[in-house]
Amino acid sequence: MIKLYDTPISGNCHKVRLMLSILGINYEKVPVSLPDGEQKTPAYLAVNPLGKVPSIDDDGVQIWDSQAILVYLARKYGGKEWYPDDAESMGQIQKWLALAANEMFNGPAIARAMIIFKREGDQEKVRKTGEATLAVLNSWLETHEWLACGHPTIADVAVYPYAALAWEGNVDMSAYPAMNAWIKRVEALPGYVGMKNMPRP
Amino acid sequence: MIKLYDTPISGNCHKVRLMLSILGINYEKVPVSLPDGEQKTPAYLAVNPLGKVPSIDDDGVQIWDSQAILVYLARKYGGKEWYPDDAESMGQIQKWLALAANEMFNGPAIARAMIIFKREGDQEKVRKTGEATLAVLNSWLETHEWLACGHPTIADVAVYPYAALAWEGNVDMSAYPAMNAWIKRVEALPGYVGMKNMPRP
Repeated sequence: MIKLYDTPISGNCHKVRLMLSILGINYEKVPVSLPDGEQKTPAYLAVNPLGKVPSIDDDGVQIWDSQAILVYLARKYGGKEWYPDDAESMGQIQKWLALAANEMFNGPAIARAMIIFKREGDQEKVRKTGEATLAVLNSWLETHEWLACGHPTIADVAVYPYAALAWEGNVDMSAYPAMNAWIKRVEALPGYVGMKNMPRP
Repeated sequence: MIKLYDTPISGNCHKVRLMLSILGINYEKVPVSLPDGEQKTPAYLAVNPLGKVPSIDDDGVQIWDSQAILVYLARKYGGKEWYPDDAESMGQIQKWLALAANEMFNGPAIARAMIIFKREGDQEKVRKTGEATLAVLNSWLETHEWLACGHPTIADVAVYPYAALAWEGNVDMSAYPAMNAWIKRVEALPGYVGMKNMPRP
């Protein structure tokens, strides 16, 4: 059975929980407590040398990074629906995976972490990255129902959690109506699961 | 013919130039001058709403983000050699694409940009991110010849430029001998091309 090294409050972990739920895959959670530094123990660093969550172990196949796990799960267990295998679809999806790994993380996710985990950071820079990123997302979603391929894919799963949780970082969500409509579409997908404060109460 | 929106001094652009050269693909460079703000003009934002380089236009297929472009080019023009199509290989490669998009960028690439472009940033944080990332890379390469799959893939192409240019950000390269040996292996690949200060003079 797949082991998910998991931190409940992590949006990156939630990407994987959401994908597993959508694909109907049974799995075992291995809790990793960040306040206790469990992500920096030798045992965990052997799973993920970066000392970050999430990671998975699927019968010996160890994958770290939330986007990498989505790629693996979708290709292994999801047929071609969530990650089509033609070059153009893969390229278009990968743009949003990169946005999820970099801009969505270093903007909305860090803004949230600075509030709920008291994480240190350059508040002004994080706020600007967040606003610029969400504006790009919102603008794209004004003319597209989904991020890539005209249907739900791992791109949506990768970008959704830190978009949906952005208000926890004091982002004014009213500035992004098309993004809010897409958030609701993701939350209506069969197999959708939420986490604390997601969907927004 | 593929158009590459290109900035000569950019390591992210070099990932794409390197892949195109390795695959033997003819292309046309469209120069984008960052000091002149050409990445923020309406014409360029229509290609890449994030206002970053590189982007490509392949007969109307527009892809931004260096990692996304590698995925697209390798799948479209490279058979299965540079980006195998089984779930485990794709997951293992994607880990390093995420590292390239986030940690390698926000560590070594920004450290370099702070010196050669006088870019602003938190010097101490960038240095720590860089050292931690290069240490993970070096440690992996102590027991692996290539980043994934036991042979050269887009993972190596994605991570190589900002590893090879790290010394321009005042990184002490002598701390990473296994990484240095891998850098030389990449530089010996058929079709390899360098850029300014790469290989290191």
